[in-house]
Order: sequence, then structure tokens, then C-alpha cells
Amino acid sequence: VGAISAQAIAGLGEVRAGADLAELIVEAAGGELAPASVVAIAHTVVSKAEGAVVELEQVEPGERARALAGAHGKDPRAVQVVLEQSAEVLRAERGVLISRTHHGLVCANAGVDVSNAGGAGLAVLLPRDPDASARAIRTRLREILRAAAAAGPVAAPLASSPPPAVLITDTFGRAWRNGQTDVAIGIAGMQPLDDWRGRRDADGTELVATWLAVADAAAGAADLARRKDSREPVVVLRGLEGFVTDEDGPGAAALLRPPDEDLFR
Amino acid sequence: VGAISAQAIAGLGEVRAGADLAELIVEAAGGELAPASVVAIAHTVVSKAEGAVVELEQVEPGERARALAGAHGKDPRAVQVVLEQSAEVLRAERGVLISRTHHGLVCANAGVDVSNAGGAGLAVLLPRDPDASARAIRTRLREILRAAAAAGPVAAPLASSPPPAVLITDTFGRAWRNGQTDVAIGIAGMQPLDDWRGRRDADGTELVATWLAVADAAAGAADLARRKDSREPVVVLRGLEGFVTDEDGPGAAALLRPPDEDLFR
Repeated sequence: VGAISAQAIAGLGEVRAGADLAELIVEAAGGELAPASVVAIAHTVVSKAEGAVVELEQVEPGERARALAGAHGKDPRAVQVVLEQSAEVLRAERGVLISRTHHGLVCANAGVDVSNAGGAGLAVLLPRDPDASARAIRTRLREILRAAAAAGPVAAPLASSPPPAVLITDTFGRAWRNGQTDVAIGIAGMQPLDDWRGRRDADGTELVATWLAVADAAAGAADLARRKDSREPVVVLRGLEGFVTDEDGPGAAALLRPPDEDLFR
Repeated sequence: VGAISAQAIAGLGEVRAGADLAELIVEAAGGELAPASVVAIAHTVVSKAEGAVVELEQVEPGERARALAGAHGKDPRAVQVVLEQSAEVLRAERGVLISRTHHGLVCANAGVDVSNAGGAGLAVLLPRDPDASARAIRTRLREILRAAAAAGPVAAPLASSPPPAVLITDTFGRAWRNGQTDVAIGIAGMQPLDDWRGRRDADGTELVATWLAVADAAAGAADLARRKDSREPVVVLRGLEGFVTDEDGPGAAALLRPPDEDLFR
């Protein structure tokens, strides 16, 4: 069995609204983009490319946002944005709002990152539909790689099927463990789960219930490869060919536990 | 920045009570064991080497175990073992017992794996003190690698400090996401968390709150490299030198959120 590897891609530069992320990735990733590799992208740059960014000075906080902000020592405009991104607030304690987003993700602050880059208070939202974003980026990657292959022999292997899979990742806390890990919030072309429940191992011994969230493990591996003091939103993973599919597949929606099975509630 | 990689180690064989795991790992891992690499070991083989295994036919289920087993369709002897490993049962629903173990881990069935290998019902427990197990394996790895270096030039780099870090891993579910990922339950010589809260990135922009559970991400990356139909409890990770320390450090205990901060409760 081959090793798996994760390599952060330098030089993507600042991503602006309307940017063609797939093109930036192909330019920056160069030879790392082997067929059936997995491209993990921090959601922030996807959100920026899609314009999923709100200027806090344009936000008018409502009554609930002002009350929550007062109780938890937060900026009422940021809380207003979080409430607008939430289908339901599950917990509001110790300065943290945990909500279920419109996508069905359970996370702190509905995935909204507030930054003060350049003095302007900006709230970076999650992409509106991260699975659709992942599919769009993958489609564009396929186009660019095929065009490159048609133009010359160098990139020819990249035109082969399947094209690189795309993961869009975010950093989530865990209810009962310290620290955060990255998870996949948007997926195109990678199997999100690897189901071994009831299957047997090499000795014919029944395996204990294992239903592995391989896309989340890949998101975590990608984040390990990033330098945190640098801008490296894109990481290329190799050795996961067994999980890469020609079809875009069910996406990260398959990783959402239905609310009526959520043990947290 | 270099890539990170994970390589499963074949040929460890069946691990019996009293086995010298460090010796088995050095024999099987060969050249993969570079200085400051991270050796991730599935807890099952650590538990077996330490004799943390219970034969179900020796277990006498008590009243509470019989009641829970009846209500959830489980083997009352297995439930008895789970209760003995639990400091507290947090949830008992839909056939799953979620408890806080004596170590402070929150997980399904107190981390007890029931198997019927060879027709004998066996319950494999978590190691009694996984951080101590990790430290003991690391100490032994250091001894063996130093002795090998003294005996000849081939393994000389392996004698350099720091020796490989040791992670003991288990597969845990998540409350609100489908599937499971591996986490670190025992650590020696690897920083469990990477704290960027309040630090600034290359542009001087304040980072959003990130406190990364790097040992859990490494455990997940290791599991991705394993073939599930084969016995590959040991995975060697490279490229994590920045998190490997000469001291054994705080261990996986640092990953446990104190119960009074547990948002699950």
C-alpha cells in the first residue's frame, strides 16, 4: 500500500470576489496536481471568490443580536450576521454561539469568521452551497486540465479521468475535546464515508463498527500540512485514489447527521 | 515547507499479552522510522500487549447492565464491561452507550471493542493509562534505536534526539456528524495542540481563534493510510518534526475538555 501525502501550495495570493479559483490553483500547484489527487481548499478563499463577505458597518443588529452580544461580550453586528446564517441557535454560553447553519452544519458562530484586515470589519460567511462550490471548482479544474493537455504533451496525464477531487474545508471545535480540527464542508469527487460496518477483515473476523469519515480525516491531514503564519489555503493530497470517484458523488451533505439522530441535542 | 506523509507498516503480526511493541515496530518499520517521525499505533494492539482484554464468559452482568442490555439489544456481559470502564454514562439511546471513561474520554461504549475472533467473545478495553503506555513505548523505542546505532552505522541517524513520537489512537464518533475519525488517546513526544489564538499571520492580520488539535489530525491522517481489510495497526508519519519534542510532554490528557466546559452536557 502506498503512502498518503499532503503538500501545501504556496503562492495563491489574495483571492478577490469573482476570482477563478481553479485557474489560480492550477497555476500555483504546478506538478502537484496528479490525476485522482485531492485538492483541499480552506473555505475562506471560496467564500471570498464567491463574494460571501459582509462589511460589518453595513449590518444593522436586531434586538436578539443586541441582547446576545451584550450577554456574551460580542460585537452585535457580528452576532446579527451569525443569526442570519443560523437555522437554529443550539447553545449560547461562555462567549460561544453554537448553531445549526442553513446547510445543516453544527458549528461555532455559524461558521462566520470576523476579521479586521486592513481596519475594515469583515465577516466571511460560509459559501452558500459548499457542495455546489466544490462541484463548480472541479468542473473548471477538469476543463483547464483538458485544455492544457490538448495544447501540449506536458500536462497530458492530468486530462485522464477522474480529475482531482475537491474538498472545501473549515475548522470546527468538538464538544468534549480541546482544540479544533478541519472537516469537509463541501466535496466533489471524493467518497465522504468509507463503510466497513459488517464487513470482515483479512482473517474473516468481523470488524467492529467502523464507518470512517474519510473526507474529514483528509481535511485534517491537509490542515497539518499548512503553515499557519502564511497564506496556504490550498493543499494537495496524494495516495487517496481509492476514494476519488469520476462522479462528483453525494458531497459533504452525507456527513451531516440528521437532527433527529444528533446525540448533542 | 515540506509535505507530510503517512505510511502504514505491514507485517506486525498478531500481538499477544506481554509483547514488546517497540521491538515489533522497529523490526516491521525498518527504514520508515526517521528521527522525529511520529509512530501512530491503534490502541487495540497496545491493549492486547498490556493484557487489557476481558473474556466475556468470565463476566457476570449486574442488574444495571442487564437492564441496559435489554433496553438496547446488547450483550449484558459486554454492557457490564462498558459500565466498569465508565466513570459516568452520558447517553444511552439508539443502541449506543456514550460514557465518560475513567481517563476522561467521552466515547461510545467506553472505548470497549467486542470481537468474536476465533469464536471466543473478547472485550478489548482501552489501555489503563494510554499516556503512560505511549511514554513506555517511546522510552523503549529510544533504547532499541540507540543500541542499534551503537552496533553499527546503518541506524545511526535514529539515535539522534528527539526519538520518534508515539501516538496511541482510537476511532471515535462525533455527536453531530456521520462517521468516525481517529483521535489521539495517548501521546508521548508530540505537542497535542498548536495554539494560534491571538497570534498574527504573515500580513499582521489577526488570526481567527485557532487552537488546533494537531495530534488528533495526525491520528486521522494515520488512519487514512491503513488498509482496512488488513492488520496495519502501526502508521509512521513524516513531516511533523515541528510538533515533535524531546520531552514526552503533557500527553493526550491535554486534549480532554474539562467536564464543566463540555458543551455536550
